[in-house]
Amino acid sequence: MEKKSLKVVKIGGKLVEDKKKLHRFLSDFTALEGPKILVHGGGSMATGLAERLGYATKMVDGRRVTDENNLQVIIMTYAGLINKSIVAQLQGMNCNAIGLCGADGRSVISTKRKNYPVDFGFVGDIQKVNSEFIFDLLEKNMIPVFSPISCTNEGDLLNTNGDSIAGEIAKAMAKELTTELFYLLEKKGVLADVEEEDSVIESINRVTYEELLKGKKINEGMLPKLQNCFEALEGGVAKISLGNEELLRTETLHTEIVK
Amino acid sequence: MEKKSLKVVKIGGKLVEDKKKLHRFLSDFTALEGPKILVHGGGSMATGLAERLGYATKMVDGRRVTDENNLQVIIMTYAGLINKSIVAQLQGMNCNAIGLCGADGRSVISTKRKNYPVDFGFVGDIQKVNSEFIFDLLEKNMIPVFSPISCTNEGDLLNTNGDSIAGEIAKAMAKELTTELFYLLEKKGVLADVEEEDSVIESINRVTYEELLKGKKINEGMLPKLQNCFEALEGGVAKISLGNEELLRTETLHTEIVK
Repeated sequence: MEKKSLKVVKIGGKLVEDKKKLHRFLSDFTALEGPKILVHGGGSMATGLAERLGYATKMVDGRRVTDENNLQVIIMTYAGLINKSIVAQLQGMNCNAIGLCGADGRSVISTKRKNYPVDFGFVGDIQKVNSEFIFDLLEKNMIPVFSPISCTNEGDLLNTNGDSIAGEIAKAMAKELTTELFYLLEKKGVLADVEEEDSVIESINRVTYEELLKGKKINEGMLPKLQNCFEALEGGVAKISLGNEELLRTETLHTEIVK
Repeated sequence: MEKKSLKVVKIGGKLVEDKKKLHRFLSDFTALEGPKILVHGGGSMATGLAERLGYATKMVDGRRVTDENNLQVIIMTYAGLINKSIVAQLQGMNCNAIGLCGADGRSVISTKRKNYPVDFGFVGDIQKVNSEFIFDLLEKNMIPVFSPISCTNEGDLLNTNGDSIAGEIAKAMAKELTTELFYLLEKKGVLADVEEEDSVIESINRVTYEELLKGKKINEGMLPKLQNCFEALEGGVAKISLGNEELLRTETLHTEIVK
């Protein structure tokens, strides 16, 4: 028997912060047929709130350190305001959403990242996705909406990369369902030339990826995302697409990651 | 066939804010046998955060008005920080909790309170509890944890009284399950003399309640809570107890509301 299909869509912080674009996206997302899951990023809202509260932002190697104060702000904004606003908007569109962080139903279990060589603070590396719980929600025609926060077995919430959460959920669900993963970007896809909006590389496989790496052609911010993509593909995800928010509604120019 | 049983426990903001007491309570709650639901209040955390962000608190008739800024703060603290911290702690105790606001799974649907005679802002009056969804979670041995936020059919989040949410959930579930409702207070129960901690009225029915009202014996803050209790009893809830956080672990002095 053919496996049922599932779409996992990851949206970034920039889209989350643009009220009009977000509303349009959520309407497109609602129109997608079949079982689906949304994973959202955090964006600059947490940083803005932390600044207003006078919390210092500590950076190491160009990356933010999540200390206890910043973790609280992240839980408030990601799992609170952003997640629940998205869920409520989806409900208003008759899309029966349920907002989750990794602690809810033990959905995304992680361990705290080792503090050596660099201590990034309260940051989680995903260990396990509770696919059975997510599967049960999908069976009831519910639409899980994940915030980028995971939880340890001991009950500690941790700041966690949204791309990784989307990738790990897609991998875990791929065992039961034919799973398609969408990473929505600001750009139309992975660009061969960052200055050139239409220089989208339409297809990337392991071999061409290595070549792009050697040629230092890819924007650095894109590298961990592509790493997630190849891991997801090798973990059984059927198809991965990267594109801007038009990707869900039209056959627009975008990048596909293939084996 | 005898109906299965359910316990609905409401805790207030003061308990939520006391780390040590909250941890002890969550451990007692985890030890409760059978299906159970937790509803938590908000407490002063939202007010504190609103103050730090420079949002004015508008009061009418001694009650807080929820304007748009304050609503955002409430969503962040109630559905975000407080709810997810409780869920994560419960998970650390091997209690498979899931944190919800009224938008999640359309669990608590409300309408915005009319702005006449007094405009309290973004405040919701509960219209419907989605008992089927909650029942499904309980069937999977999950423990729903509700924050005091509801959602309109149009997808607007609203600040909502936690006691009312607990009462309405208990009423809705009472159709399928023998439901017991616990309101945990700072005091040991409803006091005959507010100055006298041990003056607990052990049993209140409609008749004695009317007498207490006439004699102006009951602390004003307790009146809406008792109103919720009688509505819940009339709505089919089997038993209602009011007491402090020791109530879940010992046969301590407390108040029972009876028909």
